[in-house]
Amino acid sequence: MTASTALSAHFGRVAALSNAIGILQWDNDVMMPKGAAGTRAESMAQLQVLRHGMMTDRRIGDWLAAAADEAGLGPWERANLRETRRIWTVETALPADLVEASSKAISACEMRWRQARADADFKGLLPELAEVLKLQREIGRAKGEKLGLSPYDALLNDYEPGGRSDRIDALFEDLAGFLPGFTEEVIAIQARRPAPPELDGPFPVEQQRQLGLKMMAVLGYDFERGRLDVSTHPFCGGADNDVRITTRYDEADFTRALMGVLHETGHALYEQGRPQAFMNQPVGQARGMSIHESQSLLMEMQACRSREFIQFAAPVMREAFGGTGPAWEADSLLRRYTKVSRGFIRVDADEVTYPAHVILRYRLEKALIADQLPLADLPAAWNDQMRELVGVVPPDDRLGCLQDVHWPSGGWGYFPTYTLGAMTAAQIFDAACRADPEILPAIGRGDFSPLVGWLRAHVHSQGSLHQTDELLTRATGRPLDASVFKAHLRRRYGQAA
Amino acid sequence: MTASTALSAHFGRVAALSNAIGILQWDNDVMMPKGAAGTRAESMAQLQVLRHGMMTDRRIGDWLAAAADEAGLGPWERANLRETRRIWTVETALPADLVEASSKAISACEMRWRQARADADFKGLLPELAEVLKLQREIGRAKGEKLGLSPYDALLNDYEPGGRSDRIDALFEDLAGFLPGFTEEVIAIQARRPAPPELDGPFPVEQQRQLGLKMMAVLGYDFERGRLDVSTHPFCGGADNDVRITTRYDEADFTRALMGVLHETGHALYEQGRPQAFMNQPVGQARGMSIHESQSLLMEMQACRSREFIQFAAPVMREAFGGTGPAWEADSLLRRYTKVSRGFIRVDADEVTYPAHVILRYRLEKALIADQLPLADLPAAWNDQMRELVGVVPPDDRLGCLQDVHWPSGGWGYFPTYTLGAMTAAQIFDAACRADPEILPAIGRGDFSPLVGWLRAHVHSQGSLHQTDELLTRATGRPLDASVFKAHLRRRYGQAA
Repeated sequence: MTASTALSAHFGRVAALSNAIGILQWDNDVMMPKGAAGTRAESMAQLQVLRHGMMTDRRIGDWLAAAADEAGLGPWERANLRETRRIWTVETALPADLVEASSKAISACEMRWRQARADADFKGLLPELAEVLKLQREIGRAKGEKLGLSPYDALLNDYEPGGRSDRIDALFEDLAGFLPGFTEEVIAIQARRPAPPELDGPFPVEQQRQLGLKMMAVLGYDFERGRLDVSTHPFCGGADNDVRITTRYDEADFTRALMGVLHETGHALYEQGRPQAFMNQPVGQARGMSIHESQSLLMEMQACRSREFIQFAAPVMREAFGGTGPAWEADSLLRRYTKVSRGFIRVDADEVTYPAHVILRYRLEKALIADQLPLADLPAAWNDQMRELVGVVPPDDRLGCLQDVHWPSGGWGYFPTYTLGAMTAAQIFDAACRADPEILPAIGRGDFSPLVGWLRAHVHSQGSLHQTDELLTRATGRPLDASVFKAHLRRRYGQAA
Repeated sequence: MTASTALSAHFGRVAALSNAIGILQWDNDVMMPKGAAGTRAESMAQLQVLRHGMMTDRRIGDWLAAAADEAGLGPWERANLRETRRIWTVETALPADLVEASSKAISACEMRWRQARADADFKGLLPELAEVLKLQREIGRAKGEKLGLSPYDALLNDYEPGGRSDRIDALFEDLAGFLPGFTEEVIAIQARRPAPPELDGPFPVEQQRQLGLKMMAVLGYDFERGRLDVSTHPFCGGADNDVRITTRYDEADFTRALMGVLHETGHALYEQGRPQAFMNQPVGQARGMSIHESQSLLMEMQACRSREFIQFAAPVMREAFGGTGPAWEADSLLRRYTKVSRGFIRVDADEVTYPAHVILRYRLEKALIADQLPLADLPAAWNDQMRELVGVVPPDDRLGCLQDVHWPSGGWGYFPTYTLGAMTAAQIFDAACRADPEILPAIGRGDFSPLVGWLRAHVHSQGSLHQTDELLTRATGRPLDASVFKAHLRRRYGQAA
């Protein structure tokens, strides 16, 4: 057996463990009864420790050294070695007891967060969240030393390989300068038009679910390799060839759950479209979270809020709920789906104000990790940022700093990828539509195959063959910048719209 | 750290892995999309290998030797060492590649079985089933050599520690002599009475589910530590403090799913009632499958087909489905629930003919493991045994040897525990009712707490503190014999009934 073959076999076993963890995490969030939390935390911690042990196996360094000299490796095999080395370097930065302590702290904090959020009780979460933050800082420090990065950039690197906060600072400060004024302008424009008439509910959960399933099929989701379920915080998770998405339903308003399903379906199409031949290998994984989020936002924001899609979807929605009257016309639905307003909740935010919610979180988590903001001051700092960036202040922490699961669940460094993803989505969708002018007209007929075919070829099937900038340059002609995103917002929401 | 403490910590980690496997197995049977089968098989095999590695850790032998000399251990700690040694001895009998091969063969065979059963296509299953059988035989041989047992007894030992086929032969041949004649007699008695009037359906799944949940609560099931779902073959599984049961619904007949739920609830009460202090230790596990099955059959057969329970349950059933008329009277329902007939399907069999279905499987699997029956001849042998023991012959293998998941899923040596359990249930229920005469009257009021309290004290909380005969002797005054079971059948179904 060659060294590269030995590495593939070994990382195939790592993937088998990761897939187990993925399903257990899904179960934790979707199915698990409350009283099982302690038992599950033990199982998750144990599996993380075992995976960590496998990923830091003493033989890996030798295999990597030997494989570097192997002749006859193709580009995928070479990229697989590069990715294997990258994740091995990160993984060996952490001692096993830190991994286990972090996994346990996260399980405890997530469980506590559910109650604290319901009670708008930030103080009640403080001890558990402080423990998670402390351990994230230690993890960032340990990885940063190994990689020559600041603790925050080292955490960011887990989600966005090669991502750097100085580059994000520049992109986000640009947007932070643009968005408040643009938001004001859009709100003024929309205030001069009549509001779209109300959609009269209730919209029963089962009918919403059926509509979601139907739209998932339209987008090309493979139900033989996934499921749709319900969880508090919608996500796309599971395992290789078992890509499960979740949503949450509000019987008074079907439109949010539907767009949530379309968003998660975008993630799922990426996961389902990864290359089968390298599905369980490092090079077969998705290329970072900004590309991942670009695939969900490309579906949710670029494709499914287009006039073409809404014209196709309006009669499907009417049929799903027996809707009649002007509220159910495509034009009303389009106005509803492109309505801009200043709100408290990130996941309910519109396309224009969403980046502000992200920039706020990015600034705060960077300061918390750098120990420049005491955790106890988070609620006040949150509200200050909301005032500056969004223009409203939440009445309590349930609608403020307790709304997201990311920090309790140890996802520090994740938030910026949402807005990097939005910019990337605009750039990719623009390139796809220029490459194949049939994409938008086909969407108008409920046919996503030209779009998904292009994405399969240029993004999904590429896995981690290329680094992010290279992937984007190959797909769109250049690395990420904000210009297409801004142009998209001006075109959809600005004066001329 | 003492050797016994080190062992406890180590086997706590083993339990964390077993709990992960339990949830993944549940997911496999209840939630998993078809296309994930290959990925899941890899994960399950990998986890089995890791668990096997932990259970055969070189340090365990030394720890066991050192712990044998420790002073000051209480009876639970000593029993924990005994159980730890027992499972370690069994586990070290198997090489890792045999464990992995078996796990993969089982995953493939289970998946194939679902289709083969639907198609009544035994030949289509033959290659996969032959592979499972071959590996089971190897496992039985390897364990048998270590334990001084025949391959079949070595397999049986996994489900029924201390169980021996010569003892089961005697008990089952006694029953095989009694049952055909008694069945004939009961059918003649019941033929002289009018049949109970039909319950008019359909009975919508959601209403059946609500009734099942209500009855689970009546029996004392803890919903904070479990769930009720749907699967092809009903089971009780999951993890410590996460005891999940399943059923399957037939909209034309609610009575089967309901009794199925009560049966699995009996299993679940045992699992939920195991001692918390030793929940993740060998001594905290259930004491073998005949005791486990006794707890499900005690609920399903002894308690919930009693006149007292049916009188309580009849109005609850009427309310669940809006039922009216004579079919819904307690007396009609009782006659329905104690109707005896010769059928093809084990899980649908009544209390009188059920042991015949088990004896048939016991005889056949013993012969298959001993290589005294070619697997290709199984359908013919099955039909011969059905003619002799039950008195009917299935028209196809879907209703014959393809009906159960046990053999495809590697559960060889499991079947006899069903009828050992039925006999044990009769003996335990009889002892409980003699010890507390309030048990049956309370059940008539929908109050299971006297019964469950007695079971908690004498069975559930005992875990594996005692060996099976000792546990039964402490609870009922003597080891297992068939007399109480036979007396119970004569009383409920015979001439005097």
